[in-house]
Amino acid sequence: MSADDTQSKKASRWAVATGGGLPSLGEIGLNQFAPYLLNRVTARWNANVSEDLKSFEMTTTNMRVLAVLSVMPTLTINELSVYAVTEQSTTSRTLDAMEEQGWVRRQPRSDDMRIRDVSITEEGRAALARIWPSIYDRFEQLFDGIDEDDYTRFVATLHRMLQNVRKHEL
Amino acid sequence: MSADDTQSKKASRWAVATGGGLPSLGEIGLNQFAPYLLNRVTARWNANVSEDLKSFEMTTTNMRVLAVLSVMPTLTINELSVYAVTEQSTTSRTLDAMEEQGWVRRQPRSDDMRIRDVSITEEGRAALARIWPSIYDRFEQLFDGIDEDDYTRFVATLHRMLQNVRKHEL
Repeated sequence: MSADDTQSKKASRWAVATGGGLPSLGEIGLNQFAPYLLNRVTARWNANVSEDLKSFEMTTTNMRVLAVLSVMPTLTINELSVYAVTEQSTTSRTLDAMEEQGWVRRQPRSDDMRIRDVSITEEGRAALARIWPSIYDRFEQLFDGIDEDDYTRFVATLHRMLQNVRKHEL
Repeated sequence: MSADDTQSKKASRWAVATGGGLPSLGEIGLNQFAPYLLNRVTARWNANVSEDLKSFEMTTTNMRVLAVLSVMPTLTINELSVYAVTEQSTTSRTLDAMEEQGWVRRQPRSDDMRIRDVSITEEGRAALARIWPSIYDRFEQLFDGIDEDDYTRFVATLHRMLQNVRKHEL
Protein backbone atom coordinates (compact mmCIF):
# COMPACT_ATOMS: atom_id res chain seq x y z
CA MET A 1 0.00 0.00 0.00
CA SER A 2 1.38 3.42 -0.91
CA ALA A 3 1.54 6.33 1.51
CA ASP A 4 -1.25 7.98 -0.47
CA ASP A 5 -3.53 4.98 0.01
CA THR A 6 -2.84 4.99 3.72
CA GLN A 7 -3.66 8.64 3.89
CA SER A 8 -6.96 8.31 2.04
CA LYS A 9 -7.88 5.33 4.21
CA LYS A 10 -7.20 7.28 7.38
CA ALA A 11 -9.12 10.24 6.08
CA SER A 12 -12.09 8.04 5.20
CA ARG A 13 -12.49 6.68 8.71
CA TRP A 14 -14.40 9.73 9.83
CA ALA A 15 -17.25 11.05 7.75
CA VAL A 16 -16.38 14.59 8.74
CA ALA A 17 -14.88 17.49 6.89
CA THR A 18 -11.77 18.40 8.82
CA GLY A 19 -10.28 20.82 6.35
CA GLY A 20 -7.04 18.88 6.26
CA GLY A 21 -6.49 19.10 10.03
CA LEU A 22 -7.00 16.40 12.62
CA PRO A 23 -10.61 15.57 13.44
CA SER A 24 -11.42 16.69 16.98
CA LEU A 25 -13.02 14.39 19.51
CA GLY A 26 -16.24 16.33 19.00
CA GLU A 27 -16.11 15.61 15.29
CA ILE A 28 -15.37 11.91 15.81
CA GLY A 29 -17.91 11.64 18.61
CA LEU A 30 -17.07 10.28 22.06
CA ASN A 31 -19.19 7.19 21.40
CA GLN A 32 -17.35 6.47 18.15
CA PHE A 33 -13.94 6.86 19.79
CA ALA A 34 -12.97 3.26 20.49
CA PRO A 35 -10.31 3.90 23.19
CA TYR A 36 -13.00 5.51 25.36
CA LEU A 37 -15.32 2.53 24.88
CA LEU A 38 -12.47 0.08 25.52
CA ASN A 39 -11.76 1.76 28.85
CA ARG A 40 -15.43 1.80 29.86
CA VAL A 41 -15.95 -1.87 29.03
CA THR A 42 -12.64 -3.17 30.38
CA ALA A 43 -12.92 -1.25 33.67
CA ARG A 44 -16.43 -2.60 34.21
CA TRP A 45 -15.34 -6.18 33.39
CA ASN A 46 -12.40 -5.90 35.82
CA ALA A 47 -14.54 -4.39 38.58
CA ASN A 48 -17.17 -7.13 38.22
CA VAL A 49 -14.60 -9.94 38.22
CA SER A 50 -12.75 -8.42 41.17
CA GLU A 51 -16.03 -8.23 43.09
CA ASP A 52 -16.86 -11.87 42.26
CA LEU A 53 -13.41 -13.03 43.34
CA LYS A 54 -13.73 -11.48 46.79
CA SER A 55 -16.03 -14.27 47.96
CA PHE A 56 -13.27 -16.72 46.97
CA GLU A 57 -10.64 -14.61 48.75
CA MET A 58 -8.77 -14.24 45.51
CA THR A 59 -7.39 -11.16 43.75
CA THR A 60 -7.60 -10.37 40.06
CA THR A 61 -3.85 -10.89 39.74
CA ASN A 62 -4.14 -14.31 41.45
CA MET A 63 -6.83 -15.28 38.98
CA ARG A 64 -4.88 -14.02 35.96
CA VAL A 65 -1.72 -15.86 37.00
CA LEU A 66 -3.64 -19.11 37.56
CA ALA A 67 -5.55 -18.72 34.29
CA VAL A 68 -2.43 -18.07 32.23
CA LEU A 69 -0.46 -20.88 33.88
CA SER A 70 -3.36 -23.28 33.32
CA VAL A 71 -2.79 -23.01 29.57
CA MET A 72 1.01 -22.63 29.43
CA PRO A 73 3.50 -25.25 30.64
CA THR A 74 5.85 -22.88 32.53
CA LEU A 75 6.55 -19.15 32.38
CA THR A 76 9.16 -16.77 33.75
CA ILE A 77 8.07 -13.91 35.99
CA ASN A 78 8.67 -11.52 33.12
CA GLU A 79 6.42 -13.48 30.76
CA LEU A 80 3.77 -13.87 33.46
CA SER A 81 3.72 -10.14 34.09
CA VAL A 82 3.03 -9.49 30.39
CA TYR A 83 0.28 -12.11 30.11
CA ALA A 84 -1.30 -11.16 33.43
CA VAL A 85 -1.14 -7.44 32.48
CA THR A 86 0.43 -6.75 35.88
CA GLU A 87 3.56 -4.83 36.87
CA GLN A 88 6.53 -7.11 37.35
CA SER A 89 6.99 -6.09 41.00
CA THR A 90 3.33 -6.86 41.74
CA THR A 91 3.57 -10.17 39.88
CA SER A 92 6.61 -11.09 41.92
CA ARG A 93 4.91 -10.29 45.23
CA THR A 94 1.78 -12.10 44.13
CA LEU A 95 3.81 -15.20 43.29
CA ASP A 96 5.33 -15.22 46.78
CA ALA A 97 1.85 -15.35 48.28
CA MET A 98 0.61 -17.87 45.73
CA GLU A 99 3.53 -20.19 46.38
CA GLU A 100 2.71 -20.09 50.10
CA GLN A 101 -0.90 -20.97 49.25
CA GLY A 102 0.44 -23.95 47.31
CA TRP A 103 -1.04 -22.71 44.00
CA VAL A 104 2.21 -22.33 42.05
CA ARG A 105 5.77 -23.61 42.23
CA ARG A 106 8.97 -21.91 41.12
CA GLN A 107 11.92 -23.97 39.97
CA PRO A 108 15.36 -22.78 38.90
CA ARG A 109 15.97 -23.73 35.29
CA SER A 110 18.60 -26.49 35.13
CA ASP A 111 20.73 -24.80 32.43
CA ASP A 112 20.45 -21.29 33.93
CA MET A 113 19.86 -21.16 37.65
CA ARG A 114 19.16 -17.41 37.53
CA ILE A 115 15.90 -18.08 35.71
CA ARG A 116 13.04 -19.53 37.68
CA ASP A 117 10.22 -21.24 35.83
CA VAL A 118 6.78 -20.83 37.35
CA SER A 119 4.14 -23.53 36.95
CA ILE A 120 0.71 -24.25 38.37
CA THR A 121 0.14 -26.99 40.98
CA GLU A 122 -2.83 -29.32 41.31
CA GLU A 123 -4.11 -27.10 44.14
CA GLY A 124 -3.76 -24.13 41.81
CA ARG A 125 -5.85 -25.88 39.16
CA ALA A 126 -8.45 -26.71 41.78
CA ALA A 127 -8.57 -23.06 42.91
CA LEU A 128 -9.03 -21.93 39.30
CA ALA A 129 -11.77 -24.52 38.76
CA ARG A 130 -13.67 -23.06 41.73
CA ILE A 131 -13.73 -19.52 40.32
CA TRP A 132 -13.99 -20.32 36.59
CA PRO A 133 -17.81 -20.72 36.50
CA SER A 134 -18.32 -17.19 37.82
CA ILE A 135 -15.81 -15.75 35.35
CA TYR A 136 -17.36 -17.69 32.51
CA ASP A 137 -20.80 -16.38 33.51
CA ARG A 138 -19.47 -12.81 33.40
CA PHE A 139 -18.00 -13.56 30.00
CA GLU A 140 -21.34 -14.81 28.66
CA GLN A 141 -23.01 -11.72 30.12
CA LEU A 142 -20.45 -9.45 28.43
CA PHE A 143 -21.02 -11.00 25.01
CA ASP A 144 -24.75 -11.59 25.33
CA GLY A 145 -26.44 -11.01 21.98
CA ILE A 146 -23.15 -10.93 20.06
CA ASP A 147 -23.07 -13.73 17.52
CA GLU A 148 -20.18 -15.99 16.58
CA ASP A 149 -19.24 -14.03 13.46
CA ASP A 150 -19.14 -10.69 15.30
CA TYR A 151 -17.17 -12.28 18.12
CA THR A 152 -14.62 -13.69 15.67
CA ARG A 153 -14.21 -10.32 13.96
CA PHE A 154 -13.97 -8.55 17.31
CA VAL A 155 -11.16 -10.87 18.41
CA ALA A 156 -9.38 -10.50 15.04
CA THR A 157 -9.46 -6.70 15.40
CA LEU A 158 -8.06 -6.96 18.94
CA HIS A 159 -5.23 -9.17 17.65
CA ARG A 160 -4.33 -6.59 15.05
CA MET A 161 -4.46 -3.81 17.67
CA LEU A 162 -2.22 -5.77 20.01
CA GLN A 163 0.30 -6.26 17.20
CA ASN A 164 0.16 -2.51 16.56
CA VAL A 165 0.97 -1.51 20.12
CA ARG A 166 2.58 -4.31 22.08
CA LYS A 167 6.11 -3.95 23.34
CA HIS A 168 6.77 -7.65 23.90
CA GLU A 169 6.67 -10.42 21.34
CA LEU A 170 4.27 -12.32 23.60
CA MET B 1 -35.41 -15.55 20.99
CA SER B 2 -36.26 -18.66 23.02
CA ALA B 3 -34.09 -19.98 25.82
CA ASP B 4 -33.19 -22.92 23.58
CA ASP B 5 -31.94 -20.63 20.85
CA THR B 6 -29.83 -18.74 23.35
CA GLN B 7 -28.37 -21.98 24.61
CA SER B 8 -27.49 -23.30 21.16
CA LYS B 9 -26.00 -19.90 20.27
CA LYS B 10 -23.84 -19.90 23.36
CA ALA B 11 -22.77 -23.48 22.76
CA SER B 12 -21.84 -22.66 19.16
CA ARG B 13 -19.43 -19.89 20.11
CA TRP B 14 -16.64 -22.38 20.82
CA ALA B 15 -15.85 -25.09 18.34
CA VAL B 16 -14.99 -27.43 21.18
CA ALA B 17 -16.70 -30.47 22.60
CA THR B 18 -17.30 -29.68 26.24
CA GLY B 19 -19.53 -32.62 27.11
CA GLY B 20 -22.24 -30.28 28.34
CA GLY B 21 -19.96 -28.58 30.88
CA LEU B 22 -18.37 -25.17 30.66
CA PRO B 23 -15.52 -24.86 28.20
CA SER B 24 -12.25 -24.29 30.04
CA LEU B 25 -9.89 -21.46 29.20
CA GLY B 26 -7.62 -24.06 27.60
CA GLU B 27 -10.47 -25.19 25.36
CA ILE B 28 -11.40 -21.62 24.41
CA GLY B 29 -7.75 -20.62 24.02
CA LEU B 30 -6.21 -17.62 25.79
CA ASN B 31 -5.88 -15.78 22.47
CA GLN B 32 -9.57 -16.31 21.68
CA PHE B 33 -10.69 -15.11 25.12
CA ALA B 34 -11.64 -11.50 24.46
CA PRO B 35 -11.44 -10.18 28.06
CA TYR B 36 -7.74 -11.12 28.12
CA LEU B 37 -7.13 -9.30 24.83
CA LEU B 38 -9.16 -6.29 25.99
CA ASN B 39 -6.97 -5.98 29.06
CA ARG B 40 -3.74 -6.34 27.08
CA VAL B 41 -4.75 -3.71 24.52
CA THR B 42 -6.35 -1.25 26.95
CA ALA B 43 -3.46 -1.38 29.42
CA ARG B 44 -0.97 -0.72 26.62
CA TRP B 45 -3.06 2.17 25.26
CA ASN B 46 -3.32 3.74 28.71
CA ALA B 47 0.40 3.31 29.43
CA ASN B 48 1.34 4.89 26.10
CA VAL B 49 -1.02 7.84 26.56
CA SER B 50 0.10 8.36 30.15
CA GLU B 51 3.72 8.40 28.98
CA ASP B 52 2.92 10.92 26.22
CA LEU B 53 1.06 13.18 28.65
CA LYS B 54 4.03 13.43 31.02
CA SER B 55 5.80 15.87 28.72
CA PHE B 56 2.71 18.08 28.95
CA GLU B 57 2.60 17.72 32.75
CA MET B 58 -0.86 16.25 32.47
CA THR B 59 -2.34 13.08 33.97
CA THR B 60 -4.61 10.60 32.22
CA THR B 61 -7.50 11.70 34.41
CA ASN B 62 -6.86 15.37 33.50
CA MET B 63 -6.96 14.42 29.84
CA ARG B 64 -10.13 12.35 30.17
CA VAL B 65 -11.95 15.09 32.06
CA LEU B 66 -10.95 17.72 29.47
CA ALA B 67 -11.85 15.41 26.58
CA VAL B 68 -15.28 14.55 27.94
CA LEU B 69 -16.08 18.17 28.88
CA SER B 70 -15.01 19.31 25.42
CA VAL B 71 -17.95 17.42 23.92
CA MET B 72 -20.57 17.85 26.67
CA PRO B 73 -21.99 21.21 27.80
CA THR B 74 -21.78 20.56 31.58
CA LEU B 75 -21.53 17.47 33.76
CA THR B 76 -21.84 16.66 37.44
CA ILE B 77 -18.90 15.05 39.26
CA ASN B 78 -20.81 11.78 39.27
CA GLU B 79 -21.34 11.84 35.51
CA LEU B 80 -17.73 12.88 34.94
CA SER B 81 -16.45 10.00 37.01
CA VAL B 82 -18.42 7.53 34.85
CA TYR B 83 -17.30 9.05 31.54
CA ALA B 84 -13.71 9.46 32.68
CA VAL B 85 -13.68 5.89 34.06
CA THR B 86 -12.22 7.26 37.28
CA GLU B 87 -13.26 6.76 40.92
CA GLN B 88 -15.46 9.57 42.17
CA SER B 89 -13.00 10.55 44.93
CA THR B 90 -10.15 10.77 42.40
CA THR B 91 -12.34 12.75 40.00
CA SER B 92 -13.19 15.17 42.78
CA ARG B 93 -9.55 15.70 43.76
CA THR B 94 -8.58 16.04 40.12
CA LEU B 95 -11.22 18.73 39.61
CA ASP B 96 -9.83 20.74 42.53
CA ALA B 97 -6.44 20.81 40.84
CA MET B 98 -7.90 21.48 37.41
CA GLU B 99 -9.95 24.39 38.69
CA GLU B 100 -6.78 25.90 40.16
CA GLN B 101 -5.10 25.46 36.78
CA GLY B 102 -8.02 27.36 35.26
CA TRP B 103 -9.02 24.43 33.01
CA VAL B 104 -12.52 23.88 34.44
CA ARG B 105 -15.10 25.82 36.39
CA ARG B 106 -17.70 24.54 38.83
CA GLN B 107 -20.97 26.38 39.28
CA PRO B 108 -23.81 25.61 41.68
CA ARG B 109 -26.97 24.81 39.71
CA SER B 110 -29.47 27.62 40.14
CA ASP B 111 -32.44 25.35 40.98
CA ASP B 112 -30.44 23.03 43.26
CA MET B 113 -27.42 24.59 44.92
CA ARG B 114 -26.18 21.19 46.14
CA ILE B 115 -25.38 20.17 42.58
CA ARG B 116 -22.36 21.73 40.94
CA ASP B 117 -22.09 21.69 37.18
CA VAL B 118 -18.60 21.33 35.80
CA SER B 119 -17.66 22.86 32.46
CA ILE B 120 -14.48 23.42 30.49
CA THR B 121 -12.87 26.87 30.19
CA GLU B 122 -11.11 28.37 27.19
CA GLU B 123 -7.79 27.55 28.88
CA GLY B 124 -9.00 23.97 29.28
CA ARG B 125 -9.80 23.76 25.57
CA ALA B 126 -6.37 25.16 24.77
CA ALA B 127 -4.70 22.57 27.04
CA LEU B 128 -6.66 19.79 25.31
CA ALA B 129 -5.73 21.16 21.89
CA ARG B 130 -2.04 20.91 22.86
CA ILE B 131 -2.24 17.20 23.73
CA TRP B 132 -4.82 16.05 21.18
CA PRO B 133 -2.37 15.52 18.27
CA SER B 134 -0.33 13.02 20.30
CA ILE B 135 -3.46 11.16 21.41
CA TYR B 136 -4.79 11.13 17.88
CA ASP B 137 -1.45 9.74 16.65
CA ARG B 138 -1.68 6.93 19.22
CA PHE B 139 -5.20 6.28 18.06
CA GLU B 140 -4.12 5.98 14.43
CA GLN B 141 -1.28 3.67 15.52
CA LEU B 142 -3.72 1.50 17.48
CA PHE B 143 -6.05 1.04 14.50
CA ASP B 144 -3.40 0.90 11.80
CA GLY B 145 -4.45 -1.56 9.08
CA ILE B 146 -8.01 -1.82 10.40
CA ASP B 147 -10.45 -0.62 7.74
CA GLU B 148 -13.57 1.47 8.17
CA ASP B 149 -15.95 -1.49 8.08
CA ASP B 150 -14.03 -3.43 10.73
CA TYR B 151 -13.77 -0.30 12.87
CA THR B 152 -17.51 0.28 12.65
CA ARG B 153 -18.25 -3.32 13.63
CA PHE B 154 -15.71 -3.17 16.44
CA VAL B 155 -17.37 -0.07 17.87
CA ALA B 156 -20.83 -1.61 17.49
CA THR B 157 -19.72 -4.69 19.43
CA LEU B 158 -18.27 -2.47 22.17
CA HIS B 159 -21.59 -0.60 22.40
CA ARG B 160 -23.46 -3.84 22.87
CA MET B 161 -20.94 -4.99 25.51
CA LEU B 162 -21.27 -1.72 27.38
CA GLN B 163 -25.06 -2.10 27.39
CA ASN B 164 -24.60 -5.61 28.75
CA VAL B 165 -22.46 -4.61 31.71
CA ARG B 166 -22.78 -0.93 32.52
CA LYS B 167 -24.25 0.13 35.82
CA HIS B 168 -25.11 3.68 34.83
CA GLU B 169 -27.42 4.80 32.06
CA LEU B 170 -24.64 6.99 30.70
